[in-house]
Amino acid sequence: MPTSSATSEHQLEQASAERKIAETTFHVRYAETDQMGIVHHSVYPIWMEEGRSAWSRQVGWPYAEFERAGYALAVSELNVRFLAPARYDQLVTVRTYVRQVRSRQIRFEYEVVDTQSGQLLASGYTMHICVDRQARTTRIPADWLEQWSRLVLEQPA
Amino acid sequence: MPTSSATSEHQLEQASAERKIAETTFHVRYAETDQMGIVHHSVYPIWMEEGRSAWSRQVGWPYAEFERAGYALAVSELNVRFLAPARYDQLVTVRTYVRQVRSRQIRFEYEVVDTQSGQLLASGYTMHICVDRQARTTRIPADWLEQWSRLVLEQPA
Amino acid sequence: MPTSSATSEHQLEQASAERKIAETTFHVRYAETDQMGIVHHSVYPIWMEEGRSAWSRQVGWPYAEFERAGYALAVSELNVRFLAPARYDQLVTVRTYVRQVRSRQIRFEYEVVDTQSGQLLASGYTMHICVDRQARTTRIPADWLEQWSRLVLEQPA
Amino acid sequence: MPTSSATSEHQLEQASAERKIAETTFHVRYAETDQMGIVHHSVYPIWMEEGRSAWSRQVGWPYAEFERAGYALAVSELNVRFLAPARYDQLVTVRTYVRQVRSRQIRFEYEVVDTQSGQLLASGYTMHICVDRQARTTRIPADWLEQWSRLVLEQPA
Repeated sequence: MPTSSATSEHQLEQASAERKIAETTFHVRYAETDQMGIVHHSVYPIWMEEGRSAWSRQVGWPYAEFERAGYALAVSELNVRFLAPARYDQLVTVRTYVRQVRSRQIRFEYEVVDTQSGQLLASGYTMHICVDRQARTTRIPADWLEQWSRLVLEQPA
Repeated sequence: MPTSSATSEHQLEQASAERKIAETTFHVRYAETDQMGIVHHSVYPIWMEEGRSAWSRQVGWPYAEFERAGYALAVSELNVRFLAPARYDQLVTVRTYVRQVRSRQIRFEYEVVDTQSGQLLASGYTMHICVDRQARTTRIPADWLEQWSRLVLEQPA
Repeated sequence: MPTSSATSEHQLEQASAERKIAETTFHVRYAETDQMGIVHHSVYPIWMEEGRSAWSRQVGWPYAEFERAGYALAVSELNVRFLAPARYDQLVTVRTYVRQVRSRQIRFEYEVVDTQSGQLLASGYTMHICVDRQARTTRIPADWLEQWSRLVLEQPA
Repeated sequence: MPTSSATSEHQLEQASAERKIAETTFHVRYAETDQMGIVHHSVYPIWMEEGRSAWSRQVGWPYAEFERAGYALAVSELNVRFLAPARYDQLVTVRTYVRQVRSRQIRFEYEVVDTQSGQLLASGYTMHICVDRQARTTRIPADWLEQWSRLVLEQPA
């Protein structure tokens, strides 16, 4: 049946999109707040990094393995836009995906949302360059590059 | 039947002990490591604090409510013993319980373990004094004191 | 004498530029490193914030006063570009200045340099909106606005 | 003259005591506060560590050299007592000295004081064990051991 087939195709696309986006959820820690009573802005890069870790575990190529293989993704640029404050004990979810992969570079994007309402709290991106153990820029190893290239999310998240 | 009754009693005790101990599990974040390649020691107090938060949610008296009521638990002493290093991406579990409650004071104790093997990585305690919004030492409010007193874990964890 | 007058004018401009740029210097802390052996990228926003504090003390309008007056500068955007790694025990200098002031907004820019060689390690900016104690967007109070407007650095740093 | 000689001896002792104690002074960073409006307790171990770094630079045997030589001082125990809160922008001084040296162990002690009034804000100690690059416990190298042993502060600080 065409309809069900279309639905099924759509569902597959959805599932695929879902596989490309990792969601990790946790409570805001008390130490993450500052004297304004909200989460300090320097904490979001740490959450986004944990988003990358969660994404790498979900897609089956954990970043810890990448480092054991002798490589690292050095952060070359960091950007965060803050839309609404996060507070102690709040459940937040970080949605993480890859937006672009080049031979020596990868760009991750993130949304931090309130888990219950889905309200967008912050969005951001990080650019990374592949480096070796001597911190020299190098090509992303072929197997990782191939895998990451497949996981690029092209449509809007 | 005596046997089953004994078992049941034992199970109740177990359940009760379990209710007094909160366990919270998470992955070590990359930012928590230092150039020794292990988790920096200043991170454990943050994990222990998240252990207190988890405990307070589990027992149904969230610490966020305590602060909304106009009180806080200021840390008066912190102690951690480090037995084995924790590493990036490792799953760790913090076990948290109350060891002593006084009219103005509470003592929490903690174990940080490797989630999979159960290996003890660190243990510690924190002493807290109850303060009001002007940071003056004050009595723990009666309802909270009563509730916390019931939850003291007396046997060895 | 024209020559000395020109020199003097130039010196005044220099002095003025210097007053608009705050420099704060400190050693990299061990806790600020990660397992790559370099300073973690989430630390730079904290250094940049300390740059703002130093700037506000230098120009005689400390940010602590701003908060005591009932206002705060919430971070609405954060951007950092990383050019070279910083390492434990290295002396780094943060250069901070204001690039733009609007009625409800202020933009700070930063350079993080190696103190001894002057090598640029990172550059960045933060956008801030003025909020009151209830976290509502509000106008920057007139006296602060006037003072900050005078301190905008228009030429390239 | 006996008097001046006694004075001189006393002065030498003082100078010697001063050489054994390092003082490092800095402003409290905004990011170091929490929603109680005071410095979060997990920040003190970081200040104490910076105290150790300052001590090691002052005595001419920088800790960075120790690591380059293939060793590290792993923290085996951490203790802090909190007496009075520290606040954003406050100048604080960390006083650091060695209390005990053994073949594989060293104990540092700390006082954190308000720089202007001298008020004691917190005191603490850390125990460290010497480890090699494979994180195995090992003897402190002879030259470092000899040097550190000379610098033990025996009288009360």
